[in-house]
Amino acid sequence: MRDKAATGQATAGDGDKETGRLEAFSDGVFAIAMTLLVLDFKVPKPAELTAGPGPLGAHGLLGALLSQWPTFLAYLTSFLTILVMWVNHHTLFNLIRRIDHLFLYLNGALLLCITFLPFPTALVAAYLRHPDAPLASAGYCGTCLLIAITFNLLWHHAASGRRLLGPAATQEAIDEIDRRYRFGPPLYLAALLLAFVSHGVSLLACLALAVFFSVTGAAARVRA
Amino acid sequence: MRDKAATGQATAGDGDKETGRLEAFSDGVFAIAMTLLVLDFKVPKPAELTAGPGPLGAHGLLGALLSQWPTFLAYLTSFLTILVMWVNHHTLFNLIRRIDHLFLYLNGALLLCITFLPFPTALVAAYLRHPDAPLASAGYCGTCLLIAITFNLLWHHAASGRRLLGPAATQEAIDEIDRRYRFGPPLYLAALLLAFVSHGVSLLACLALAVFFSVTGAAARVRA
Amino acid sequence: MRDKAATGQATAGDGDKETGRLEAFSDGVFAIAMTLLVLDFKVPKPAELTAGPGPLGAHGLLGALLSQWPTFLAYLTSFLTILVMWVNHHTLFNLIRRIDHLFLYLNGALLLCITFLPFPTALVAAYLRHPDAPLASAGYCGTCLLIAITFNLLWHHAASGRRLLGPAATQEAIDEIDRRYRFGPPLYLAALLLAFVSHGVSLLACLALAVFFSVTGAAARVRA
Amino acid sequence: MRDKAATGQATAGDGDKETGRLEAFSDGVFAIAMTLLVLDFKVPKPAELTAGPGPLGAHGLLGALLSQWPTFLAYLTSFLTILVMWVNHHTLFNLIRRIDHLFLYLNGALLLCITFLPFPTALVAAYLRHPDAPLASAGYCGTCLLIAITFNLLWHHAASGRRLLGPAATQEAIDEIDRRYRFGPPLYLAALLLAFVSHGVSLLACLALAVFFSVTGAAARVRA
Repeated sequence: MRDKAATGQATAGDGDKETGRLEAFSDGVFAIAMTLLVLDFKVPKPAELTAGPGPLGAHGLLGALLSQWPTFLAYLTSFLTILVMWVNHHTLFNLIRRIDHLFLYLNGALLLCITFLPFPTALVAAYLRHPDAPLASAGYCGTCLLIAITFNLLWHHAASGRRLLGPAATQEAIDEIDRRYRFGPPLYLAALLLAFVSHGVSLLACLALAVFFSVTGAAARVRA
Repeated sequence: MRDKAATGQATAGDGDKETGRLEAFSDGVFAIAMTLLVLDFKVPKPAELTAGPGPLGAHGLLGALLSQWPTFLAYLTSFLTILVMWVNHHTLFNLIRRIDHLFLYLNGALLLCITFLPFPTALVAAYLRHPDAPLASAGYCGTCLLIAITFNLLWHHAASGRRLLGPAATQEAIDEIDRRYRFGPPLYLAALLLAFVSHGVSLLACLALAVFFSVTGAAARVRA
Repeated sequence: MRDKAATGQATAGDGDKETGRLEAFSDGVFAIAMTLLVLDFKVPKPAELTAGPGPLGAHGLLGALLSQWPTFLAYLTSFLTILVMWVNHHTLFNLIRRIDHLFLYLNGALLLCITFLPFPTALVAAYLRHPDAPLASAGYCGTCLLIAITFNLLWHHAASGRRLLGPAATQEAIDEIDRRYRFGPPLYLAALLLAFVSHGVSLLACLALAVFFSVTGAAARVRA
Repeated sequence: MRDKAATGQATAGDGDKETGRLEAFSDGVFAIAMTLLVLDFKVPKPAELTAGPGPLGAHGLLGALLSQWPTFLAYLTSFLTILVMWVNHHTLFNLIRRIDHLFLYLNGALLLCITFLPFPTALVAAYLRHPDAPLASAGYCGTCLLIAITFNLLWHHAASGRRLLGPAATQEAIDEIDRRYRFGPPLYLAALLLAFVSHGVSLLACLALAVFFSVTGAAARVRA
C-alpha cells in the first residue's frame, strides 16, 4: 500500500475505491441510525385515550401527542447530532485518501457509538419527567462523549505524520480540524457532569454543542 | 471551494465525488424510510380472530386483514410520496454539481421530515375511523407541507445566482423547477386546512398531489 | 435526454451516473427488506416456557424455538426470493444504460412490492398451522405474482424498441430475458390458485420458482 | 463475460461496475444488520422500576440498566463480529475483479447468515442467566460457524484456479487468506461444542475469535 502511494494516478484510483467503500458503508450506518429514531414515536392506542383534558390542557389525541414532546425533543437532538457527525465524517474523508487496518476498526468503533445513540435517546424521552432523569441524561451525554473521543482517535490516527492524508490536505485545514476536535471531549464531559446538577440544561448543552460544531464547521469550510 | 470551481476537470471530479456521497447518504435515508413503512402492518393474532363475520362481512383472517385497509391506503400514499420526493431529489442532483455547508444542513432538514413521515402515516392508519381523524390527517398533511417547504429552501439555496449548479443546468430547466416547486407549499397548506373539513378528502388530496408532481415531473423531463 | 444519447462519451458517463444512483437506491431497498425479515423471529420469554415437552417432543427453549419452524421456512423462502429478484435486477441493469421518468416509477412499483413482502411472510409464518393458512399462502403468492408482473412491465418498457438499452445488449440476451420473464406471472398465478387446494404445496412452489429462476439465470449468464 | 475478460480496459471498467454494485448491496446488508442490533435494548418502563435495590445493588433505573448487561455484552460481540466480517469481505473484494452467478448466490448465503445473527444475539441476551443458556450460546456459535463456512465457500469459489481474481492478487495474498480462513470453521465448531460445557466461555471464545481474525487480518495487510 505505502509503496504504491508514490506511483500516481493508478494508485489514486485505488485509494478512492478503498475510501469510497468505507464511506458508503459508514453512510449506510449513519442513515439507518437516523431513520430508526422515528421508531421511538408511539401511536397512542385509540382505546386508551382519556376523555378528560390531557397534559397542557388538550383533549384526546392532541393531548396524547403533545405529551410525547420529550420524544420529539430527543428525536430532534439526536437527528441533528448524527447529522453533524455525518457532516464531520464527510469533511474528514475529503482529506483522507488511504485507509489502513486500524483505521477500519477505529471507524467501526465510531459507528458502534453512533448506532447506540437511539437507545439513550429513547431513554431520555421516557425519563425526562422522572426522578431518574439525571441518569438518563448522563447516559445520553456519555454516548456523545464516546462519539467525540472516537472521532478524535480516528482523526489523530489519520493525520499524525499525515499517515492517511492525500496531497490536497493543507496544513491549515489539518490545524483547523485539530483545533475544533480538541473541544469535543472536554465539552461533552462537562455536559455529562452537568446532568447531575440539571439534566434539562445538560441536554440543551448537547443540542448547543451540535449547533456549535455545525456552525464552526461551516466557518472552517468558508475559510478553506 | 469557490476558486477551484473555475479550474475545470479536476474540480468537476471533486464535485462529483462530493455530491455523490451526499446522494448516496440521502438515498439510504429515503430507502429506509420507505421500507420501514411496512412495519405498520400488524399480523393479526390467531387467538384473537373472532368467529363471527368481521368488517365488510368477511370472517376470520380475511376480515381482520380487510379491516387494516386504512393502513394499506396510508402505506400506498406514503410510499408514493417518498418515491416522488426521491425522484425530485434525483432530478435536482442532475443539475447540482457543488455543495456547501448550508446545503448539507438544508438537505438534512429535508431528510428529517422524510424520516418522520412513517409516524404520521401510522397515526392516520390508526385514527382514520376515530373522532380524532382530522387531527391525524392534519399531522400527515403538515409533514408533507414541511417536506415541500424544505425542498423549496434547498432548491432556492442551490439555484439562486446558480450558486451550486453545474454548466449543464439550462435556464429553462431552472425555471421549470421554480414553477413546479412554487405550487407545493400552498397546495399542501390547503390540504392541511381541508383536514378539519373532511379528513378523507384531505388525504386523497395528498395522494393526488403526489401523482400531480410525478406527472408534471415526467412532462418536465420530456421537454428538457 | 434522447438527443444527448447520440453524442457519445459524455452522455455515457451521464447515463452511468443516472442508472448508478437508481441502482444504489434500489439496492438499499432490497437490502433493508431482506434484513427486516429477521425481525419476525421472536425471542421466547423465559417466564413463558412450559415445563413439559414442547412440539416435536423437545423441552423448554429448544421446543419453543423448534415450534418457530414456520417462521424459519418463511424467512428462507422470502430471503431467497428477494435475493433472486435482486440478481434479476442486477442482470437487467447490465443491459440498461438510460432511464426515463416512467421507468423510475415502474421501478418504484417493483420496490413497493418488494418492501411489502415481509408482511405476507410474517402472515404465513403465523398461520401455517391454522385453518386460515390457505388465505395467508395466497397472500404470499399474490405478492410474488405482483413482483413478477412489475418486473415484466419494467423490462418491457426498457426493452421495447431498445428504448433504454445500451449498445452492449445483444438481441440474444434480450430474447433470453423475454423468454424467462414470460414464465413468471402464469406460474405464480398457478401457485396462488394452488393455495386453496394445498397451501403447503403452494409455498413450496414459490420456493421452487425462486430456485428455478436462479438456475435459469445462471444458465443464461453462461451462454451470454 | 469470460471472453471479454481478455480485452483489457473496457472490461476492467465493467468488472468494477459489477463488483461495485455487489459490494454496495452487501454493505447495505452489513450496515443494517449492525444497526438493528440496538433494537435489543429495551427502555425500562418507569412504572415497573422497583423501589428496592436492583441487581448489583443499584436502585431504580440504574439497576434496571445494569441488569441488561448480557444484552450489552451480546451487542458488543455481535457488532464486532459483523464488523470483522465486513472487513474480511472488503479485503476479499480488493482481490476479486469479476463475479459469476454462483458467486452472487454464495454471497447471498453469507448475507443470509449475517442478517440472521441479530436473532441468536437477542436469544443469548435473554437466556444468559437461564438453565437453557447453553442452547442459546450454541445457537450463537452455530450461526458464527455458518458464517465462517459460507466465507470459505465464497473464497474457495473465487480463488480456485484464480477464477474471479484480478491481476493484482498475488499468490502470497491468496495463500495468506487460505491459511487464515482455514481456521474459522474448526474453531467456531469448537466454540459450539464448548457451549454445552460452559456457555460463558463459549461466548468469550466467539469474542476472542473476532479479535483474533481482526488482528491477523491487520498483520496480513501490513505484510502485503
